[in-house]
Amino acid sequence: MTQPSTITQRFLSKPNQLGVVAVGFNGGQCKLGVEAAPMALIEAGLLTQLKDDLDYEIHHDDTVHFYENLIPAEDPDHRGMKKPRAVSAVTERLSQQVYEHAREGKFVLTLGGDHSIAIGTVSGTAKAIRERLGREMAVIWVDAHADLNTPEMSPSGNIHGMPMAFLTRLAREDRRDIFGWLQDEHTINLRKLVYIGLRDVDRGEKQLLREHGIKAFSMHDVDRYGIGKVVEMALAHIGNDTPIHLSFDVDGLDPQWAPSTGTPVRGGLTLREGDFICECVHETGNLIAMDLVEVNPSLESLGASETIRAGCSLVRSALGDTLL
Amino acid sequence: MTQPSTITQRFLSKPNQLGVVAVGFNGGQCKLGVEAAPMALIEAGLLTQLKDDLDYEIHHDDTVHFYENLIPAEDPDHRGMKKPRAVSAVTERLSQQVYEHAREGKFVLTLGGDHSIAIGTVSGTAKAIRERLGREMAVIWVDAHADLNTPEMSPSGNIHGMPMAFLTRLAREDRRDIFGWLQDEHTINLRKLVYIGLRDVDRGEKQLLREHGIKAFSMHDVDRYGIGKVVEMALAHIGNDTPIHLSFDVDGLDPQWAPSTGTPVRGGLTLREGDFICECVHETGNLIAMDLVEVNPSLESLGASETIRAGCSLVRSALGDTLL
Amino acid sequence: MTQPSTITQRFLSKPNQLGVVAVGFNGGQCKLGVEAAPMALIEAGLLTQLKDDLDYEIHHDDTVHFYENLIPAEDPDHRGMKKPRAVSAVTERLSQQVYEHAREGKFVLTLGGDHSIAIGTVSGTAKAIRERLGREMAVIWVDAHADLNTPEMSPSGNIHGMPMAFLTRLAREDRRDIFGWLQDEHTINLRKLVYIGLRDVDRGEKQLLREHGIKAFSMHDVDRYGIGKVVEMALAHIGNDTPIHLSFDVDGLDPQWAPSTGTPVRGGLTLREGDFICECVHETGNLIAMDLVEVNPSLESLGASETIRAGCSLVRSALGDTLL
Ligand SMILES: [Mn+2]
Ligand SMILES: [Mn+2]
Ligand SMILES: [Mn+2]
Ligand SMILES: [Mn+2]
Ligand SMILES: [Mn+2]
Ligand SMILES: [Mn+2]
Repeated sequence: MTQPSTITQRFLSKPNQLGVVAVGFNGGQCKLGVEAAPMALIEAGLLTQLKDDLDYEIHHDDTVHFYENLIPAEDPDHRGMKKPRAVSAVTERLSQQVYEHAREGKFVLTLGGDHSIAIGTVSGTAKAIRERLGREMAVIWVDAHADLNTPEMSPSGNIHGMPMAFLTRLAREDRRDIFGWLQDEHTINLRKLVYIGLRDVDRGEKQLLREHGIKAFSMHDVDRYGIGKVVEMALAHIGNDTPIHLSFDVDGLDPQWAPSTGTPVRGGLTLREGDFICECVHETGNLIAMDLVEVNPSLESLGASETIRAGCSLVRSALGDTLL
Repeated sequence: MTQPSTITQRFLSKPNQLGVVAVGFNGGQCKLGVEAAPMALIEAGLLTQLKDDLDYEIHHDDTVHFYENLIPAEDPDHRGMKKPRAVSAVTERLSQQVYEHAREGKFVLTLGGDHSIAIGTVSGTAKAIRERLGREMAVIWVDAHADLNTPEMSPSGNIHGMPMAFLTRLAREDRRDIFGWLQDEHTINLRKLVYIGLRDVDRGEKQLLREHGIKAFSMHDVDRYGIGKVVEMALAHIGNDTPIHLSFDVDGLDPQWAPSTGTPVRGGLTLREGDFICECVHETGNLIAMDLVEVNPSLESLGASETIRAGCSLVRSALGDTLL
Repeated sequence: MTQPSTITQRFLSKPNQLGVVAVGFNGGQCKLGVEAAPMALIEAGLLTQLKDDLDYEIHHDDTVHFYENLIPAEDPDHRGMKKPRAVSAVTERLSQQVYEHAREGKFVLTLGGDHSIAIGTVSGTAKAIRERLGREMAVIWVDAHADLNTPEMSPSGNIHGMPMAFLTRLAREDRRDIFGWLQDEHTINLRKLVYIGLRDVDRGEKQLLREHGIKAFSMHDVDRYGIGKVVEMALAHIGNDTPIHLSFDVDGLDPQWAPSTGTPVRGGLTLREGDFICECVHETGNLIAMDLVEVNPSLESLGASETIRAGCSLVRSALGDTLL
């Protein structure tokens, strides 16, 4: 039914090679279970499908990384952040793993874990793309949330609500063990960031979005324009000469399609709208990496398999699966 | 997460003051339970949210009005209408309550109750707007039903299916105790009425809509154009120089989002589409009053809280809450 | 609530006469139950509604045809096809039944049955329209599937996945008892075929769609353009001078609205989108026949009545029922 993509990939030198990183990390938030997502996705057949149906050559160490040896025994709050050293150490390591795939021109697929891991994935591809192509890449962030809180603004202190703040330098920290390892080469230009699906944005985040003119399509925009026009506008903002990293938080989908996630928010994207975004980003030929995060198979007995199936569908769509 | 609106309100002299009327009336139809909606909405935190998150100054008598003393002991049918004197007496009193808020330039929020109460709310704001601004106001009626039956056309005799007929003078009655109190100052011009969400319209109502060229967007139009374009066309019909009264029957939403209502009809608006309508009407700066009606918390054990939450969301959206 | 259509029917000489064929046939696939659909639809009141609300004169033999005498005792596979002689004999007979209604200028409504029966219905109307009007008719095929497999391509051998292949001569067979009865007068021009709702298309089918430039709107297109624009484009492709046969597989709808069907595929049309297609095709004035197939009332205890209700709604919409 599925078949390999026929789209030419502009920014990958090995477009049919897939670097996969499975990240069983839950330290960016407080609910157990999200660390089980990579194994659940793989057991549901995701990598096999990518290999057999879409003809990718999978580069995977057959390991779900829990990074136990990187988690410090003591990790007191810092500037309100919870578990700052653990998240910093894990994302620093992940950044290196992603970078090593990306610098070879492979597509990098990261299976999370909570969304704090994007500090690692985005910084890793951003560095590789700068080195390999001398370019700034863009990020499309599909999410109910903006994940743009600075530590001081955050209502919860959970770092999965802050990754874009650190990645864009809206938040900085000099301590080497708490994100001080992030260099300019790891960062994202605010003009290269586009949100889709927002519907639960904190007051301070709203202010940052306005002040900095960050391109953000909320569900209000999806209602107003339809998903077709929204994706068209999102891609036009990025331009066609820019590599794209897609960071997909499964809570961007409506809980009807992805109930098993840590912070569900009603009024979200249908699975078809989510797949549509992925299909269109694939069609640009500019996609160089994807994260799938916040699937939490332990939160719902009935909804878990549905959420996992939705996650598999999103990844397949981003990697070239099509309906026709 | 929410914050006060930044939209300038063109037709309110006290835009941050909110006159609230809680109307526990069920006499326009035959099912018990809809009289409990105002208390359920308030207990769900609606007024607190409007005060704390959206900075409104609430003017509310802390009373749910049941108008027991206005309900006559004897109330035989008249021209097929059920409980005509009760509905007439209650809506006459409500008209005065709404008028008193509206003539001071406050926004008027009415929590019903069944949709017959719109005879009171719309007549009250129409009179106040005529006096205060010398203008005819418009009505946006979001509903599965047109509520445009004349007594003789009505299949059921329930007056909640007739309010727009009396308010537009398509139905008239001279008896003082049965809507004879409605004066020209209380009425709505048929050209200033716009429907959204229709999908269960009686044969006689369809004929009236056609004959009088009333602007009506059915679900067929929502499918064809998308809700964004439908709201744009609805607002263009009204024009930007006209105060708007929004009368929102929760059965305009699909039963999936608002199951607990007296006459649910499948194939309706999603909650996001309902919120979108409210957000857009707020953005015009022309909204001067809103009714939320037909929430019936007693009809479904599971669906009641969902329906109440939906109702709260609609009201917050009409009063300036935004996703971004 | 409903009322007769006011649309002039361009290609029917007896536009208010309805030839109904009830086809209790399940041999094009392997699940029992789909043969019970015509009776379930009729018992749900479909024909009564068409008569009473939409003023059709019903021509129906008051029989659900099971064609027992046409089913051979022995029916070995041929070119991988399962039950080829049974399907061939039944569809040959059905073709004649449909032809007899259609040549008189009546609208023909066929209630299936699995989708293999379209070999009978479409061939019957195609022949009648050629004779009566000297024209090639168009087919709008609403379905999750393309049903375009040739016997050799088919993964399952079920003939309900092949009707469009035989009807367009992409598949041929000379044996008289296995579709050899199909003459040129029975066939459909590939340029006159339009699909809507596709989302589960086999690899070989995808290739045929591309090679022959067949007009196909998948769910990706519905997401991108909205159903309003998709139907507009579908009808523009057909042109306004062409009689239309609408073959509606209820699995074109999302399982949320039509769960009780043999091969449900998620991510489908909402019931409103399905009704919208039917309403728009009716509005063209060019519709001359409709099939409703693949309702299987025995697959779900809860979802069966919902699926039947959805089926009734689709038929009513295609026959002129409107929301306003
Ligand atoms: Mn999120
Ligand atoms: Mn997130
Ligand atoms: Mn209603
Ligand atoms: Mn109403
Ligand atoms: Mn099908
Ligand atoms: Mn089919």
